[in-house]
Order: sequence, then C-alpha cells, then structure tokens
Amino acid sequence: MPASLSKTIALIAGAGPGTGAAISRRFAKAYPVVLLARNQETLDSIAKDINQNGGSAIGFATDATSSSSMNETFSKIEEKFGPDFRIAAAIYNVAARFQKSPFLEQNLDDFMKQLDPTIKGAFNFAQAALPRMINPSGAAGEHPPTLIFTGATAALKAGSGLSAFAMSKFGIRAMSQSLAREFGPQGVHVSHAVIDGLIDTEATKAYPPHEPDAKIAPDQIAESYWYLHTQPRSAFTQELDLRPFSETW
Amino acid sequence: MPASLSKTIALIAGAGPGTGAAISRRFAKAYPVVLLARNQETLDSIAKDINQNGGSAIGFATDATSSSSMNETFSKIEEKFGPDFRIAAAIYNVAARFQKSPFLEQNLDDFMKQLDPTIKGAFNFAQAALPRMINPSGAAGEHPPTLIFTGATAALKAGSGLSAFAMSKFGIRAMSQSLAREFGPQGVHVSHAVIDGLIDTEATKAYPPHEPDAKIAPDQIAESYWYLHTQPRSAFTQELDLRPFSETW
Amino acid sequence: MPASLSKTIALIAGAGPGTGAAISRRFAKAYPVVLLARNQETLDSIAKDINQNGGSAIGFATDATSSSSMNETFSKIEEKFGPDFRIAAAIYNVAARFQKSPFLEQNLDDFMKQLDPTIKGAFNFAQAALPRMINPSGAAGEHPPTLIFTGATAALKAGSGLSAFAMSKFGIRAMSQSLAREFGPQGVHVSHAVIDGLIDTEATKAYPPHEPDAKIAPDQIAESYWYLHTQPRSAFTQELDLRPFSETW
Amino acid sequence: MPASLSKTIALIAGAGPGTGAAISRRFAKAYPVVLLARNQETLDSIAKDINQNGGSAIGFATDATSSSSMNETFSKIEEKFGPDFRIAAAIYNVAARFQKSPFLEQNLDDFMKQLDPTIKGAFNFAQAALPRMINPSGAAGEHPPTLIFTGATAALKAGSGLSAFAMSKFGIRAMSQSLAREFGPQGVHVSHAVIDGLIDTEATKAYPPHEPDAKIAPDQIAESYWYLHTQPRSAFTQELDLRPFSETW
Repeated sequence: MPASLSKTIALIAGAGPGTGAAISRRFAKAYPVVLLARNQETLDSIAKDINQNGGSAIGFATDATSSSSMNETFSKIEEKFGPDFRIAAAIYNVAARFQKSPFLEQNLDDFMKQLDPTIKGAFNFAQAALPRMINPSGAAGEHPPTLIFTGATAALKAGSGLSAFAMSKFGIRAMSQSLAREFGPQGVHVSHAVIDGLIDTEATKAYPPHEPDAKIAPDQIAESYWYLHTQPRSAFTQELDLRPFSETW
Repeated sequence: MPASLSKTIALIAGAGPGTGAAISRRFAKAYPVVLLARNQETLDSIAKDINQNGGSAIGFATDATSSSSMNETFSKIEEKFGPDFRIAAAIYNVAARFQKSPFLEQNLDDFMKQLDPTIKGAFNFAQAALPRMINPSGAAGEHPPTLIFTGATAALKAGSGLSAFAMSKFGIRAMSQSLAREFGPQGVHVSHAVIDGLIDTEATKAYPPHEPDAKIAPDQIAESYWYLHTQPRSAFTQELDLRPFSETW
Repeated sequence: MPASLSKTIALIAGAGPGTGAAISRRFAKAYPVVLLARNQETLDSIAKDINQNGGSAIGFATDATSSSSMNETFSKIEEKFGPDFRIAAAIYNVAARFQKSPFLEQNLDDFMKQLDPTIKGAFNFAQAALPRMINPSGAAGEHPPTLIFTGATAALKAGSGLSAFAMSKFGIRAMSQSLAREFGPQGVHVSHAVIDGLIDTEATKAYPPHEPDAKIAPDQIAESYWYLHTQPRSAFTQELDLRPFSETW
Repeated sequence: MPASLSKTIALIAGAGPGTGAAISRRFAKAYPVVLLARNQETLDSIAKDINQNGGSAIGFATDATSSSSMNETFSKIEEKFGPDFRIAAAIYNVAARFQKSPFLEQNLDDFMKQLDPTIKGAFNFAQAALPRMINPSGAAGEHPPTLIFTGATAALKAGSGLSAFAMSKFGIRAMSQSLAREFGPQGVHVSHAVIDGLIDTEATKAYPPHEPDAKIAPDQIAESYWYLHTQPRSAFTQELDLRPFSETW
C-alpha cells in the first residue's frame, strides 16, 4: 500500500460482534479500518481477525456520546495515521437500545439515555469525521467519501411503548437527511439504511423465524454499505431498505 | 358550570402570545384553561384577556424541560382544581428553536438545548398529563380526552443546516405516533399537527408573503385543534397538515 | 333561502347508502345537495330522506367513468340550478372495488376496470366541477370551495394481491396532491382523507371487530369533511387520516 | 456459456438510447439480454453494440401496453431460448410521458394514454415475466431473480399540472410494493428505483445544470440495478433513490 493511501481510512463506530464486525471486514478489503466501540476486548477480537486475514485494523475504545472521548480517539487516530489522515467511509452503526415498556412506567433519565447513542453519539461522530471527508473537487480517491447511518423501520413508524426507540430512529433519519443536503454538494455521500427485520447474529439465534435466509445476514448489510460507498457522485442513494425475502411487512 | 365539570380542564403548554394564546382562547370557550410557559407575565396577560371575556384561565410559569418544575405545576393545579382534576385536552405547543447554521459550526451543548423542548419537555408533559386523561370506558365527558402536539414540515423533511430542528420535529412526530398507538385503545386521542408555513403573528409581520391569508392564522390552528378534540373515538385523526392556500410547497 | 344562494350546491359522487349518504345529509344542512351514483333508486332513497328532513336533495344516475354521462348530468344540474350555478363542495367518494387475488390470476381488462372509478371517474368529476369552484378573489361564499377525495390506507402502503386497489388509491392521492398545488392558489381547497379501518355500515355488520366504536361511523367521516370545508384559506388541510381509537395499526 | 445457463436471460423493457441501453449493456455482461421497445431500429442499434462487444443481445419491437404484443414477443423469446427459458432479471424502464399542462386543458383520452405505459405496460410485463422468475427453492441461479421498476420523485410528491405523470409514478410504486409483498416470499426480488434528477442523455444535453456529474449518469443507474440484482434473499432492497450530489432537493 503506497504511503499516501495508507492515510485514508474507514471508520466504523458500533463495531460489535455482528453487523459492525461484518462492515469492518468488508471495508478492510480496501482500507485500513479503525473500529470504535465501548468495549476494547470486542474491538481487539474483530481487529485481530481482520489483521490475520490480510487486512489492517485497530480498535479504540470510545464512548461516542462523549465529545471528549471522541476527540481523544481522533487524537489517537492522528498519531497512528498522521495529522492529515482522510476518511473514505464513516459508518455510524451504534445501536439504540430496543426497550419496550409502557410509557407511564418510563422515567426521564432512562428515556434520555436511550436517545444518547443516536443524538449525542451521531452528532459527535459526524462532527469529528466530516472535516476529513469534505471533497469539493471530487478528485481524490476512487470513491466519494461516504457517511452511512444504520437505521431501522422504527425510523418510519413508531410502535406502542417504543417512543424512545422511535424518537432515536426518526432522529437519526432526520440527521442523515439534513447532512445529505448540506454535505452532498461538498462531495460527501450521506446515506441512511433502513434495516427492516431481525439481523442474523448470536444474539437473535433463539428468535423466530428459523427458516434459511429469513433473518438479515450481517455480511449483506456490509455489502450494501460497500455498494453505497462505490456510488459515484452523479448517482448517490440517500436511503435504502434491507429486508429478508420472507418478510410479511 | 356544575361542580363536577369544573374539575375538568384544558392544559396548554407553550402558551405564548401567538398560537398558544389562540389555542387557549378557543379551549376556554369550553373548559377552564391552565396555561404553561416560562414567562409568568405572558401567561398573566393571556389569562387576563380570557378572564375578562367570560372564560376562566390561570397561568403557571413552568420549565417543561424540568420534571420537577412540571411536577410543581401539577401540584398547583391540584390545589386549584382538586386532587382528582381531569384533563379534557392537553396541547403541547412548545416551539423548538429554529436555528439554521452550518453543522460543523454547531456545538453539542447548544444542539442538545435545541432538542430539549421537544424531547424532555414533551416527555414530561405527556407523562404528567396522560394519567388524568385515560378513559377506557369511553363514558365520561362530551369529547374524548385529546393530546395534541404541534409539529412542522420539518417533521417530514430535514433541511440543510437544520439537523437539530429536524431531529426535534421528527422526534415529536415519533412520540405522537407511539403514544397514539399505546393510548388510543385507552380512549385518549393523540394527534400531531404539521404546521406548514409561517404563522401570522407579531414576530413574522416583517416577513413575506404579505398577501392576505398567505400566513396561517393562529385562530385557525386553534379551530383545527378544537375540531380534533371533538372527534369521537370511532374516527380519530392522528395527523393533519395546515397550510395557506397560496403555498407553493 | 335567497335566490342567489340557491345556486350554490354541494355535489357528492358515490352517494351510496353508507358514507355517501352520511356526507350528503351533512352538507344538506347548508346547501342544496346533488347526488351522483350509478343507481337511481339508491339516490332517490337518500334524496327523499333529506327532503323529508328539511334539506333539499336531488339525485342523477351517473356513470362517473364516462365523460358523456358526467356532461349529461352537469346539463341537468344547469337546468335545475341555472347556467351559472356554483359548487361550494365537491366530494368524490366513489369506491374502488376491493378485490384481492393472486396477481398472476388477474387479467388486464378486469385490472383496468378496477382502476376506472379512481382514474377516469376522478378525472371526469374534477374537470367538470373545478370550473365552478375556482375563486381567486376569496370573496364569495362563507367557506372556500372544497374538493375532497375519499382515500384509504392503501394509498400509502400496497398489500399483497392488491396491486389494482393500491394503484387506484395511490393514484387518487397523487391527483389530490397535484390538484391542491394547482388550484389552492386559485382559492380551491383540495383534500384527501385516508380512511383507515372498516366503516360501520350494513355491509360490514358481520365483520369484526364488534366492540362499540371500533368501526368508523359514516357520520363522523361526514363531520370531518364538513370541517375541512369550513377551514378558511389561511389554513387548509390537504390530508388527514381517520381511524377508530381501538385500531392496532 | 454452458447450455443450461444460456436459457436464462435478462429482459429489459424500455430499451431506449439512454438509460435502457446502459442497463442492457450492464446485464449483458452476465446474461443474454432481450430488449423490448416500440422502435425496432433503436433496439437493433443497442443490440448490435452489445453483440460487437462480447455480449449477446436481441431486440423485439413490442408495444408493452398491448397484451397481445407482449404475448407475441414472449413467443419469439421462447423460439429463440427454448420453451423453458428463465428470467434472471426483468427491468421495466418504460417512461411515462412527462407532460405538464393546466388540468382543465387536459382531456381524458390523452390523460389515459399518459397512464398506459405504467399501468397496462407494467401489468403486461410483470404478468408475462413473473412465471419465469418464481423461485421458491432459492436454489437455482447465482442471484435471486429480480424485477425492477424505474420510478421517479413524482412517485412521492405530485406537482401542479402533473396529475397524470404523478398518478403513473405513484401507481408504479404501488405495483412494485404489492408485487414485492406477494412474490418476495416466492423468491423474487421486486424493487423500485426513485430517479430524482435529470438523467444525462442526448435528450437532456441542453438543460442545466451543466456542472460535471450534476446529471445522473445512465451507467450508474445500470450499476445500481445490477447491485439490486446481486442482493441475496436475506437482504432485499425494495426501494432506493438516486440523485446527483449537487441536487438541492
């Protein structure tokens, strides 16, 4: 890898064992990847796997909801990749906690905590990443820099007992739209993926449906994010949905 | 007014001089109204006007974003209307600050403050009001208890430089949908009004368009809220838009 | 009723025994109503009821999908109300046939016939009615002239085996939006009502749910249409939904 | 190409010189392509180009709005590819005429003709293609069979003077959703692409914007359709939008 390219990274926040790891592996085929999550052990395990398979990965334990933690992490990335490192793809895959409960039994502090990952976290992540992505010339890099937010059906329709979850998903969609309109003309591709169905991970193994392919394969979410990244600037997709064939909607 | 009915109030949060005052006047034709806003003077002025015109109004300075302030206010309402007072209509008309600026020039604290009115405020208001609205029998009261949130076009489409404003409006829409699905079956009518256009107030006098009726009359927002309140439970409207005839969309 | 006012009518197409009759009765409180449907007997029965209760109604058997039938009907209205009659409210309540079947078992002729009421019919109705509604001055009449289309949830979400039905409902929504944007600035209020649930009529008596108010009362659809009609031009609603409180969405 | 695979084709309706040709070239990298359009000369020119560049293409002049013409074409495809030919990808790219005019100056016949391509044409195409696409086993073929409809922003928002155009675009979206829900569980991937912007073709050369990449490159529409085709059945996208980076929405 030539020196100049080594300074262009992919950054994945919410690099957990399921979707986050799959996205990281996919983008590691093209870029050194920097992984962010709260838990250093999880990050190390994903990074180790990537490094052993011909990629280059490093993880920094980060609390995305804290500006100072995000800034600290960006200092570490600078140390490693140089002060002028660029971000080819920034993926915000931090999950809002799915927590269904009667509205009158919820309390404000808990409610706000449910929103933090999508509000504070997405804000901090986008603010730190975008200055290293803006590309008005459209010249550098094979693919336009891409900022992707993982969303969910709850971004479009709010269920009973799920006001915090829905607020967080509606909110992330609002942010992705607003940033697309501001940073698209600056050459940054901002996208929102509506994940509509259970993702096929260890955590969902016990849940139906048990038919083959009836849950969303994390590798396929990763492929769709990679595809979004490869779209040239004459044809950006702002929003797509992903859903198993068997889904009855 | 018989004693029992005197304990059923309409509660308007965001009772400012424009739309809030108009809503308050409209609901005061049918109920004693309790007005909430930060500024006691504004409240007193609106209440005085209502009281002089045959209605009954009282204002309590409240910071809706603070649970303790909201609780304090509800204690005062109890003192005045009795421990078992009921709410016929609760209107959440607190405005999110409209503040357009380049995303990279925003800061997190300010961003979060822009969201507080719609997130914390709406949460506190709905949690305090709903227990006094639930009506599974469908029996009492001429009209089903009604919880209305004032929204905006930004609830559907997020503009450049407006991610906080859009997030707050998308969020209030999410909350209204989620509460509608939870509390509809409990007899509470939860609605969301999409205000699409400038409202005709002192504050917007200088702005175009200057043609007659090209801004939304506050009294007509009030009439539409009253109409929502009168819908019987066989035909609830969850969402409607309001827009001047001359709007080019 | 003074002579000049007698020339302003309400026109209801799709005046069947359920919702159409309810709408006709409601608008008959304010205007002479002209009822259109295929079946003269049904029309006569509704008209008779209205005439016996202090209103003024007349029905003309019309095939809305035929331009010539629609023109003939308008000639008859002219004969009765004078060449310069005006339309205060035009309601297009003609139902698309709800017909669910596997797509591969459908045939083109039948498919097109399912679409005719909403495409040809709505086109013919709007073209005939609008020239007698346009009102740029905003002066005449107590309420702005109003053109309302009855829609359904299928206007927003298309179900399996229902492509014709969905196409017809998506289509009527498209027409209502397009006409709103063209004729709003000409003083005509164009609206679309999303009926989301079973309507409580003789035809649906056998179907669940059987709880009180769990089907939409036709009279309440009528009230909501009347409310739309009364909105002044500073605050037009283009779309509202109607749904029983018990609906689980 | 092995004999068995040679019987699996890609079918492109609306194979005009811009987007249709680009889609045809893209799918010709993987399948023999069959091109449908009204004009045989256009088809021949596209086919010749593909055949000279290592692909395999044949064009059949077809009026998609006529069942008999569509059936005739399918007989010819059978003759060429065998009675049991299969369709890997069917793309419905037939354009609705964009025709803006005051509603009251339109006439029914012309209105209906504007709708024919999307209603009759899409119906005929989907009915002829789907029986050769259904794949409940999920076994055969590298990629799930894919039915894609080209749509437009007018599928989501109807402009003034554009009711026929909007009706046709709303309608095609309705059909794609309905078919997705019926045929997804049968292994067919049904998608809808919202083209939001001018496509960069000979026909639009004169129109602004003239900045590089400010119109949508037909090849990129083709790439996105190919990507949709490659999605495995655990993660189908039903709808995506495509828009130049510079679009101000």
